[in-house]
Amino acid sequence: MEKKRIVGLMTGTSLDAIDIAICDFYNNNNKFQFNLLNYKEYKFSSDYKTFINKIINEKSFIKDISQLNFYLSELFCDCILDLCENSNLNLNSIDAISIHGQTIWHNPSKENFLDKQISSTLQIASISAISSKLSKKVIGDFRSADIMLGGEGAPLIPIFDYYFLWSNTENIISLNIGGISNITYLPKNCNKNEIIAFDCGPGNILIDSYIQEFTDFSFDKDGSLAIKGKIIDSLLKELKNINFIYKSPPKSTGRELFNLKLIKNLIGNNNYYLEDVIATLTDFTAFSISYNIKKFADENSNIIVSGGGRKNQSILKRIKYYLPNSCILLIDELGINGDAKEAIFIAFLGYLNLLKIPGNISQVTGALKEIVLGISADNL
Amino acid sequence: MEKKRIVGLMTGTSLDAIDIAICDFYNNNNKFQFNLLNYKEYKFSSDYKTFINKIINEKSFIKDISQLNFYLSELFCDCILDLCENSNLNLNSIDAISIHGQTIWHNPSKENFLDKQISSTLQIASISAISSKLSKKVIGDFRSADIMLGGEGAPLIPIFDYYFLWSNTENIISLNIGGISNITYLPKNCNKNEIIAFDCGPGNILIDSYIQEFTDFSFDKDGSLAIKGKIIDSLLKELKNINFIYKSPPKSTGRELFNLKLIKNLIGNNNYYLEDVIATLTDFTAFSISYNIKKFADENSNIIVSGGGRKNQSILKRIKYYLPNSCILLIDELGINGDAKEAIFIAFLGYLNLLKIPGNISQVTGALKEIVLGISADNL
Repeated sequence: MEKKRIVGLMTGTSLDAIDIAICDFYNNNNKFQFNLLNYKEYKFSSDYKTFINKIINEKSFIKDISQLNFYLSELFCDCILDLCENSNLNLNSIDAISIHGQTIWHNPSKENFLDKQISSTLQIASISAISSKLSKKVIGDFRSADIMLGGEGAPLIPIFDYYFLWSNTENIISLNIGGISNITYLPKNCNKNEIIAFDCGPGNILIDSYIQEFTDFSFDKDGSLAIKGKIIDSLLKELKNINFIYKSPPKSTGRELFNLKLIKNLIGNNNYYLEDVIATLTDFTAFSISYNIKKFADENSNIIVSGGGRKNQSILKRIKYYLPNSCILLIDELGINGDAKEAIFIAFLGYLNLLKIPGNISQVTGALKEIVLGISADNL
Repeated sequence: MEKKRIVGLMTGTSLDAIDIAICDFYNNNNKFQFNLLNYKEYKFSSDYKTFINKIINEKSFIKDISQLNFYLSELFCDCILDLCENSNLNLNSIDAISIHGQTIWHNPSKENFLDKQISSTLQIASISAISSKLSKKVIGDFRSADIMLGGEGAPLIPIFDYYFLWSNTENIISLNIGGISNITYLPKNCNKNEIIAFDCGPGNILIDSYIQEFTDFSFDKDGSLAIKGKIIDSLLKELKNINFIYKSPPKSTGRELFNLKLIKNLIGNNNYYLEDVIATLTDFTAFSISYNIKKFADENSNIIVSGGGRKNQSILKRIKYYLPNSCILLIDELGINGDAKEAIFIAFLGYLNLLKIPGNISQVTGALKEIVLGISADNL
């Protein structure tokens, strides 16, 4: 049972921070285990955030994109070296570095481009540059292959859920409450081709964007605002009219649909208390999740919650209200650090690449086939 | 002596075409040999050229760069499949595909970028996408590691010259006459750390750009215009004032210095015959090459000429005039297809990656160390 020590780096679409985890992975006949050795979040500077937001939203010279690609590679190297030092780990003990990279474009829908129909995804940070600087094997670019094979390039997390949360006695739902909420449904004793995974609707995004607009806070810590408010029935009713919630999977959504503008439109000229709006958005979020679990998965499941929203007691209470037969657990209770989950997951994708095991699940992403994800450099 | 069959794809800065070579490589104690099985040039459409010129010269949305990255990957796949069919070769017989990618940015000089000093290079076409589409190992991105290690990321061709043109009895100069002219000097029986390589000055670029401006031709076929003209002494004298020619290596140059504007400035209001200007530019080109060989290499060498300019008899005659003691050969005379050389070279870089042999030469590029170049995908 050979050990592989892998550093995983996640940089999400929130453009907030580089999340890094150092993990040891073990393989016992493709029963995988891991130990998290250390985890840390490195916040981006506001200059960096401004720059990358410009790259994503405005026209730029190719020079700026190329320079950013190498700049981010240097930042990644700095963070890796810092975390190793911080953990009293010698870089020599690391077998590979696995990076998601910063997504600057992702659109799985084919569009006309010159004489072809093209869909594409683009993550930056140079795998070769990091590898040459640290003299380490570096693995990354996990979404391109799935996109090229006609898939959505997402979600990829179900393979992690399958290997680490699967049970032969219980139906498992891995619920991630990030900006958007999504689930991986693992019927008890399921095969990989029985896995269902999709976006339910809003996670923290409606609550957070409303709070960020009207207070100095960035989110509803522990759900404490929601608990003080009363649900506004008319607003909840309008929210429940959003068609996406009731669509059959596969489905995915994002900021295009669930955003501040939506809430403002629905509220109109009404003068509601902040706490009441938050209580209502919280209830709607819990309703969307619960409806999708009941309708398209199974409410008699162990629901294992990850993502920042797992710390919002009010969301969890309302899910429990809507799904009285479910058993709700935080992923942390299973011994997996909930804050580190995504960085651990990226490390795991690197591990699967080393083992030449496919990382996508074809009925989940829609790709033509399951393949080993990622490219790698060994510039030693 | 295991055989590896590799497809090499070169797409140069002229944005003209995709050059593809299929080669078998053999390794006999790191004495390498190859057989070229087939070679073909696939011209880009004018729509493609217009688009990529915009990407390089103007601001663009990141979407366009991402889409172009996948579009070019699809084009590469089309060409590979076509050439295999054309050669009656089954894709199954190919061990790896090696791509240079289209350079859209390359600047080894460090510049301020946010809080760091950054230099970078960027080649497009997605290694992972091509690999997943063709179910083949794909290798590429050969310049990033050298740049990250403080090198110029160029020239890389000297490693090819070293393994295939080296002699224990003769001084060898591999002279490439592309847009720019450059040489690799291999003193007889030299070690890798004795190799000298640098840009001499203009190759075809002055001749071609003048012809393209004033005729319907794109180059001086066989040097037939030059042969009809007389050298304009005053113009030649002014050209010879260009300081770059006399600089000590390492040195590199490009379109920034040698271009149509330079010629127009020097000609001013003079009303010269086309043939005379071409004869003069041709002589200056041969002079620049010869001066650099005499001064920084050795005129008593076998000069092996590659690049499109090897077909310009007038350039070669003038080099022979300036270097009477040299022996000038076309690379084709050594059994290497001169048109295919760059694509073969890219295939060879892929081969070196497979063998984990460094591809850069540190005193040539200026990199901190010699390393295996390239990243690879095995999305099978």
